[in-house]
Amino acid sequence: MEIPAGFTPIQHSAAFGKLTGPFYEKPEGEGGFVRALRVAEKLTNSFDIVHGGMMMTFADIVLARACREAASAPVVTLRMVTNFVAPARLGDWLEGRAKVTRATRSLVYVTGRLSIGRKTVLTADGVFRLVRRERDLPPA
Amino acid sequence: MEIPAGFTPIQHSAAFGKLTGPFYEKPEGEGGFVRALRVAEKLTNSFDIVHGGMMMTFADIVLARACREAASAPVVTLRMVTNFVAPARLGDWLEGRAKVTRATRSLVYVTGRLSIGRKTVLTADGVFRLVRRERDLPPA
Repeated sequence: MEIPAGFTPIQHSAAFGKLTGPFYEKPEGEGGFVRALRVAEKLTNSFDIVHGGMMMTFADIVLARACREAASAPVVTLRMVTNFVAPARLGDWLEGRAKVTRATRSLVYVTGRLSIGRKTVLTADGVFRLVRRERDLPPA
Repeated sequence: MEIPAGFTPIQHSAAFGKLTGPFYEKPEGEGGFVRALRVAEKLTNSFDIVHGGMMMTFADIVLARACREAASAPVVTLRMVTNFVAPARLGDWLEGRAKVTRATRSLVYVTGRLSIGRKTVLTADGVFRLVRRERDLPPA
């Protein structure tokens, strides 16, 4: 499947990123980015559309990317609100963009959007927690 | 890894279920169920905890299961609100339960919870849409 010009593959440190990827990224605007994926069969459900869990996974990856950029630190998800607006189908080129609303010393508030061409397919609103040290991880 | 007594593997029709599984199920209470998974390395992020996207994927699978049971029809996710309460780690036995709040002719409202032993690790609240016919699928 063809990858649009300007996108380069992301190198994943996370096993779950490797499992569900590949994902691609391209710089956009001032310090911004767009992430994307080509919908493969492995990401679909029994309706041949992208599984709801995978839509949220990609949204999480896109939102977390914007948070890390704003906070200059790794983050973990605390809360996510996801609206499924339209389905993504096998072969679709799915793009994701996000914008940080506010970053504090410990939290980042972020909103994002997944789209196919000019059509919005998902909106998401999240809160992430910064992980500067091991003890910032949520307690076991 | 050991599977607790009473749980049987789920047969997935969805490619994404096969990719992220195996998942297990056990009847519980009156007409109820519990679904579960043993956290494998492939589901983790760079902090060695279950990736946020995978936590939402499992929550989606658990909530959708309860909706299908209540509606006697397949469903697609319309909206999900997810709170990440504590992490799940490699080797953990992660269980999920859900309860339908209301089912109408087209929508199902549902809440659910993921837990490890007696500890809640995630809460979720969702709205799903029934798919009785192909035209019930969200428009492309």
